[in-house]
Amino acid sequence: MVEYTDIDRLAISTIRLLAVDAVSKANSGHPGAPLGMAPAAHVLLRHMRMNPKNPDWINRDRFVLSNGHACALLYSMLHLTGYDFSIEDLKQFRQLNSKTPGHPEFELPGVEVTTGPLGQGISNAVGMAIAQANLAATYNKPGFTLSDSYTYSFLGDGCLQEGVSSEACSLAGHLQLGNLIAIYDDNKITIDGDTDVSFTEDVLKRYEAYGWEVLTVENGNEDLDAISKAIEKAQQSKDKPTLIKMSTVIGFGSLHAGSHAVHGAPLKADDVKQLKKKFGFDPEQSFVVPQEVYDFYQKNVAEPGAKLNAQWDKLFEEYQQKHQQLGQDLARRLSGKLPENWCSKLPTYAPKDGAIATRKLSEITLENIYAELPELIGGSADLTPSNLTRWKEAVDFQPPSSGLGDYSGRYIRYGIREHGMGAIMNGISAFGANYKPFGGTFLNFVSYAAGAVRLAALSGHPVIWVATHDSIGLGEDGPTHQPIETLAHFRAIPNLGVWRPADGNEVSAAYKSALESKHTPHIIALSRQNLPQLEGSSVEKALKGGYVLQDVANPDIVLVATGSEVSLCVEAAKILKDKHVNARIVSLPDTLTFDKQSEEYKLSVLPDRIPILSVEVLSTAGWSKYAHQSFGLNRFGASGKAADVFKMLDFVPEGVASRAEKTIAFYKGREVDSPLRTAF
Amino acid sequence: MVEYTDIDRLAISTIRLLAVDAVSKANSGHPGAPLGMAPAAHVLLRHMRMNPKNPDWINRDRFVLSNGHACALLYSMLHLTGYDFSIEDLKQFRQLNSKTPGHPEFELPGVEVTTGPLGQGISNAVGMAIAQANLAATYNKPGFTLSDSYTYSFLGDGCLQEGVSSEACSLAGHLQLGNLIAIYDDNKITIDGDTDVSFTEDVLKRYEAYGWEVLTVENGNEDLDAISKAIEKAQQSKDKPTLIKMSTVIGFGSLHAGSHAVHGAPLKADDVKQLKKKFGFDPEQSFVVPQEVYDFYQKNVAEPGAKLNAQWDKLFEEYQQKHQQLGQDLARRLSGKLPENWCSKLPTYAPKDGAIATRKLSEITLENIYAELPELIGGSADLTPSNLTRWKEAVDFQPPSSGLGDYSGRYIRYGIREHGMGAIMNGISAFGANYKPFGGTFLNFVSYAAGAVRLAALSGHPVIWVATHDSIGLGEDGPTHQPIETLAHFRAIPNLGVWRPADGNEVSAAYKSALESKHTPHIIALSRQNLPQLEGSSVEKALKGGYVLQDVANPDIVLVATGSEVSLCVEAAKILKDKHVNARIVSLPDTLTFDKQSEEYKLSVLPDRIPILSVEVLSTAGWSKYAHQSFGLNRFGASGKAADVFKMLDFVPEGVASRAEKTIAFYKGREVDSPLRTAF
Repeated sequence: MVEYTDIDRLAISTIRLLAVDAVSKANSGHPGAPLGMAPAAHVLLRHMRMNPKNPDWINRDRFVLSNGHACALLYSMLHLTGYDFSIEDLKQFRQLNSKTPGHPEFELPGVEVTTGPLGQGISNAVGMAIAQANLAATYNKPGFTLSDSYTYSFLGDGCLQEGVSSEACSLAGHLQLGNLIAIYDDNKITIDGDTDVSFTEDVLKRYEAYGWEVLTVENGNEDLDAISKAIEKAQQSKDKPTLIKMSTVIGFGSLHAGSHAVHGAPLKADDVKQLKKKFGFDPEQSFVVPQEVYDFYQKNVAEPGAKLNAQWDKLFEEYQQKHQQLGQDLARRLSGKLPENWCSKLPTYAPKDGAIATRKLSEITLENIYAELPELIGGSADLTPSNLTRWKEAVDFQPPSSGLGDYSGRYIRYGIREHGMGAIMNGISAFGANYKPFGGTFLNFVSYAAGAVRLAALSGHPVIWVATHDSIGLGEDGPTHQPIETLAHFRAIPNLGVWRPADGNEVSAAYKSALESKHTPHIIALSRQNLPQLEGSSVEKALKGGYVLQDVANPDIVLVATGSEVSLCVEAAKILKDKHVNARIVSLPDTLTFDKQSEEYKLSVLPDRIPILSVEVLSTAGWSKYAHQSFGLNRFGASGKAADVFKMLDFVPEGVASRAEKTIAFYKGREVDSPLRTAF
Repeated sequence: MVEYTDIDRLAISTIRLLAVDAVSKANSGHPGAPLGMAPAAHVLLRHMRMNPKNPDWINRDRFVLSNGHACALLYSMLHLTGYDFSIEDLKQFRQLNSKTPGHPEFELPGVEVTTGPLGQGISNAVGMAIAQANLAATYNKPGFTLSDSYTYSFLGDGCLQEGVSSEACSLAGHLQLGNLIAIYDDNKITIDGDTDVSFTEDVLKRYEAYGWEVLTVENGNEDLDAISKAIEKAQQSKDKPTLIKMSTVIGFGSLHAGSHAVHGAPLKADDVKQLKKKFGFDPEQSFVVPQEVYDFYQKNVAEPGAKLNAQWDKLFEEYQQKHQQLGQDLARRLSGKLPENWCSKLPTYAPKDGAIATRKLSEITLENIYAELPELIGGSADLTPSNLTRWKEAVDFQPPSSGLGDYSGRYIRYGIREHGMGAIMNGISAFGANYKPFGGTFLNFVSYAAGAVRLAALSGHPVIWVATHDSIGLGEDGPTHQPIETLAHFRAIPNLGVWRPADGNEVSAAYKSALESKHTPHIIALSRQNLPQLEGSSVEKALKGGYVLQDVANPDIVLVATGSEVSLCVEAAKILKDKHVNARIVSLPDTLTFDKQSEEYKLSVLPDRIPILSVEVLSTAGWSKYAHQSFGLNRFGASGKAADVFKMLDFVPEGVASRAEKTIAFYKGREVDSPLRTAF
């Protein structure tokens, strides 16, 4: 039972004023939510087990500020409890190159995930709770509770309205994630004004419908005991996540408290002054922290946390003695290393192995490697038999009471929730312990999750999208399902691997790249239709992102392609050869990886002096980096048998060959440089 | 009170078998939902007022098949009731160039919107209900009920799990859309198996939480009276949308009824035969329609519908006599025409008008034109004061009982629901009556709505996204908010206008293009920061999508840019001029429009023989169509004052000038063709 006294109130005032000062100094930012949520933040800190000197301690309680714009609050919390944030850092809030950017970023100490885009943080928190449940079920043993951490999240009306959070929270209720506790800042204010203008649903009823426990705190501005009791009650529910609806006044203490004016603009100078006076601080001073507040957090948060961390270290040492296999494995995962030689299990292929759809090759790969990688945790957005994402012996990640699996399971039935799946994967990855999440859907519907995909790239979460049905090759489902702009979109996102493997060797390379990645998410685009194993392909070559598949002496043209179009080019090259036109064939399974190779290597693949034609049955946007001319698809697809659609759009060997000839004619008599050469 | 007899059951069997036969003939498709939902489809037809000979009758009841994969059902319904679908069309199901593609498409007679991507259809239906309520509130007069149509939707577990539908349905409850009736095909089956594996929430409770009326039908397979009563009860609730949870067996009648095997693959031949026998049909015949079924639908649906349509026509004629102004206006809208001379209200600017943020110029434009265009209905995803999307005298679209507005209002508070907003806009547009919806958010968060944006382009809904805060120019909010890949993504979607106006004249051009568009959605990317009015710009020139802003004799280089970078290039050109380097400046506010100009015109803007450098502080992907070299941003942004961020990334006049010089040097001594020239 935590007791609250004057020092708690002083700490809360300190948090409030630090946040307000940071926003005022930057003349930019959001003071309202920090003022409203400071009491809850302080009470939560008194319940959280964390070690500011070791932000990566695996069994720490985690806190996600889903309403990331309130980060002046978060930075204050982190500074006061002893994370690596100085007062000077707070003064540099929202300034270029500071440690305190306008929305919290994953790489900062104590920041669990990047937030700002609404709905993401709470959905990440669901992922963290999944990872924690899985870690506990996998490694905990009698007398050795290595994992029992909670995942806490603050969220506001914005996050609650976003569809991604609806998806993730519905799943969280189904999965009975008892260690997930969300505090909803019910302040009735959004940018457009009172929530009455657009958000009048019964939030608690909705969350009950999801299977959550719902609690209320009437006065989140001042009633520390009520907030405290709610958190403790939430901690007790082991088979339901909890939503605590906590009513606050946005901008509590400000002259404009309760209005949307305090949401996203600094308080006026006189308002700040009266606020400071109201809280017993000197109105002429800024960034003030009474020493007793530092001492208090040291004594009540930092030191206990460090002690618990040390105890955990000792426990884990003993665990490694008593449960050697599991202990070794967890130690390996905590060091961020994959098992030695895991990739010896990646299958390799030769042309005689016949034509197989790359989605099927992906399934075979997963079947081969899942047992090597306990950190691999996959799923599909309700397309398992189409994505082929589940190994035969998989145990589904389900609450044991469901009879459908248990928490040690590594296959997640995400449901028809692509965006939720993406944000959950980001959370699973962010949790630590080397978790490698993958999620399947149709390539076209990865676009539903664009917000989460972008954050994975921005933050550096090495999640994996298994994206099947990657072109008009999917046939009859038609243009609503056939990707066109999808890979152009994703290739334009920095730090996102976009693999479109052409055969089994390239699929293995894609998975090797994806699983060994520490900071780069991957999308692996896979075919529904069968594709031949290619002569000249290998895992090693594909790992360069682009390579010469088939060469000729004195090529008249270079054909560069991905996925299903590589074999198309092989066929086209035969037609050209009959006409005495020599074509080199280049496969370019991932441009991000290729871009990172040496200039020398890249120019050896896409050289000067030879016209280069790209072939990919998707948008041509972006291809000019690698080719002089591009044969692609800049219109929507059509519903029909795949072969008929390919034919109608001239994606047949003759179609490629004729465009190759036109390309050669176009550059006749002219010297071409490799497109890789740029002016700056 | 509708009574159901043998002929109804015969009709239902006919629907079922037509759908099954279509899927079997195509050897592709989804027979399960059609088998399960045929009774509901038939009962609904008996309650719907529609004229198969006039699918565009404005006061028709509308039906949206949100679970669009069940379209074999829809095509059968449309054929039987007399829409322009022949039996031969049904036989061509899922074949290339047929009238019966694998998912229903907007342009087909009787298909209200394109569905297939889950969650969209029901969200479109919310938009249709909004449009209907607005039309009624605007034009209905005593004795002249011109609009009282219902919007019906079928949806399944998939649509219910998708976040977009959560967003739209929460808003629908808030807006009290009583004429919206959704029938939930509760068949407990998804692709991954029983809904127990991932979807165990209490759906009815959630919809109650949204403020919907919820009803149940226990036996949707056979209890026609119960389905009928539920629909009639739903029709009665005037201030709540209704969700009818109707339990069915997927694949009813099949040997594999109730299993996910019948969801998405044709039934086996013997299964089809036993099904036909079970329903009293000849197992050796396919595509059979007993004449009495055709007669029944003629007598009970088509003829009454035609009569109602004729009565409406007469009523409208009388209305135009009695309420001349409104009648004229509605007649104009029904003909799809904008008011004459509306665009004389579009503001024009000269350099002396000073620097104004294009988001502000957008607001001024809306303020100028809203009164001319009663079909303009706008809103924002809770960023109204940031997007500047609301004219001063706007009446909010709200239920009258809220005291916040009424249904004649034309400003929608969408809430933090970007994807829902996008799908709702598609539905408003699809409703008819020339509705021109626009919705505001930050450019980066249009990506949250990628699924709906794509469908707008695919279907041809001329909706408008007012997308502000379009680059690192937004400053301190930082990389989570600063677009990079966003316009590259959207430009790669066919049939999507992507305008990034540089000044007030270009903003006016963007709105002219957007509002006059019949089939092309528009994204208008707008700055947060002030931008100067440009010498040489005009609405007329900008309407070509690209034009020469400033020319010189014998240019050494062409600088082509959009938005904030056009004035940056103007500054850079001054620096270059001092170095005796002559730069022509081209503004390219919309590449889609530019692409449609004559070859001659385009080459006059981007000619041969001169190196061309593009400048846009976003991804360079796609720019090679228009430039030889590209200065852009292929990394994430940063949190800081906008000027500091621009400077750090060298997006300053010197940065452009130096790259221009490097570009000239790169092509020295070489002949360059316009990038517009391609080999094929």
